[in-house]
Amino acid sequence: MEASARIEQTLELAVQRTAAENGPPRLAAAIRHAVFPGGARVRPMLCLAVAEACGGDDPAIADGAAAAIEFLHCASLVHDDLPCFDDSAVRRGQPSVHALFGAPLALLAGDAMIVLAFESLSIASAHRPARLAALLPLIARSAGAPYGLCAGQAWESETSPPPEQYRCAKTGALFVAATMAGALAGGGDPARWRALGYRLGEAYQVADDLLDAVAAASESDKPVGRDAALGRPNAALELGVAGAVERLQSLIAAAGDAIPPCRGESALRDLVRAQALRLAPKHLLHHAA
Amino acid sequence: MEASARIEQTLELAVQRTAAENGPPRLAAAIRHAVFPGGARVRPMLCLAVAEACGGDDPAIADGAAAAIEFLHCASLVHDDLPCFDDSAVRRGQPSVHALFGAPLALLAGDAMIVLAFESLSIASAHRPARLAALLPLIARSAGAPYGLCAGQAWESETSPPPEQYRCAKTGALFVAATMAGALAGGGDPARWRALGYRLGEAYQVADDLLDAVAAASESDKPVGRDAALGRPNAALELGVAGAVERLQSLIAAAGDAIPPCRGESALRDLVRAQALRLAPKHLLHHAA
Repeated sequence: MEASARIEQTLELAVQRTAAENGPPRLAAAIRHAVFPGGARVRPMLCLAVAEACGGDDPAIADGAAAAIEFLHCASLVHDDLPCFDDSAVRRGQPSVHALFGAPLALLAGDAMIVLAFESLSIASAHRPARLAALLPLIARSAGAPYGLCAGQAWESETSPPPEQYRCAKTGALFVAATMAGALAGGGDPARWRALGYRLGEAYQVADDLLDAVAAASESDKPVGRDAALGRPNAALELGVAGAVERLQSLIAAAGDAIPPCRGESALRDLVRAQALRLAPKHLLHHAA
Repeated sequence: MEASARIEQTLELAVQRTAAENGPPRLAAAIRHAVFPGGARVRPMLCLAVAEACGGDDPAIADGAAAAIEFLHCASLVHDDLPCFDDSAVRRGQPSVHALFGAPLALLAGDAMIVLAFESLSIASAHRPARLAALLPLIARSAGAPYGLCAGQAWESETSPPPEQYRCAKTGALFVAATMAGALAGGGDPARWRALGYRLGEAYQVADDLLDAVAAASESDKPVGRDAALGRPNAALELGVAGAVERLQSLIAAAGDAIPPCRGESALRDLVRAQALRLAPKHLLHHAA
């Protein structure tokens, strides 16, 4: 089965488990709305690609790790859209979860998806507890405090957050988790795959900064110009648009260089490049594409 | 070391990990405020007591499981206090987390504590992966959807939630997790300990309903009469105060009867009774105490 189909199937089975007959139906509907239809599933695709490059000896665990990372990502989007954060009524061209289900259910759906991430991981790796024991703290660190996704969002509540630490936590942590968890899940050495996740996380943040600063609203799926309005660090505001584009191109090249020798190295290099370019404003990057 | 000192120490070490030098300091402070000073720590006390009753062959894992359950409980209190839920400015006689740090950090602190629960469990049981693989899905189920804590709160967003399912999820799930995880952590059979958790969860919910319905504000640490105002199921509203007191007493007795033959059975019975009575409105229960 293709990687993207494996990811959708794993997410679907997990989301179905939340919709049992005796459970609250609107919570299950809110979770489903948060997960489907998805975006590019960049992080789980990366996780599966690295697992494959490391030998891919246990696809079920790789699927579980990829789904866990995607659930953590989706949870953060739902909470990020809430009125007390970005107050976005739209996500991926559809009503955001709180716009459709109200803030209480959006908050709870995010909470339940954080839990679901770890539950899915545990179910997928029940037959290999030693691998679970390695994956769980790695993925948890990427989501929590002091260096994970929650910490990244929390930097926005500090006056003048350090840009490097803010970006590492807000975007980098989950990319690093994707590559390192992929390596662990596939039977490889996670340390060799840290740099790839780190560089891709940086590239994504710069691409996102560019979108926020300059993209036409029609090209982005969220309202633009928020970073400037909210005083958040933004590479395009710091380096100028041309400087940020240059930085993005060099980060994409650095990500390719960070791929260690492995099975299917050239296909992985193509995937990394394609995924890294997805988010970038297309009219700015036609020379790089 | 006494059980309560073990719990505070385990929580303290985990909370310290969230406060690294390069992490966002206000998030770490919000997490600390949510966890210390704690309430009665009823669930982790129960978890450690059951682990001991089952042989207590690995206290570190029991500590990790107890802390995980307490972090999930604390996270739910922080989110429950938010303006979009109960909008409580006070918790345990102190300002609630959002009253002190704002809603964004309160939301993130809750998220980070859910993650911290699983991270703590993984760190405490790294040396025994098979036990981690059994504990993780059990604790995750008690927190998420469709039957855990998130589901319990989500029932409040449904019109006429089924009272039994609402209570099981909102209060019962974490008590069942406390007894069953305690058994697993201590090397025992979790299935034998489900009934105790279930009965205690029911008793706590009735005690909480009584407090909400009738206690003087000085005896409760949260504003009273919310269930009636918000149309939530409440045993004191359904059975009357005298009926609810009678039901509470019979549930406390049933909890005692649900303790299976074990090491230190009589001490455990005393603990269960003392913990069950803690929450109850004292002037109503002087005959039972």
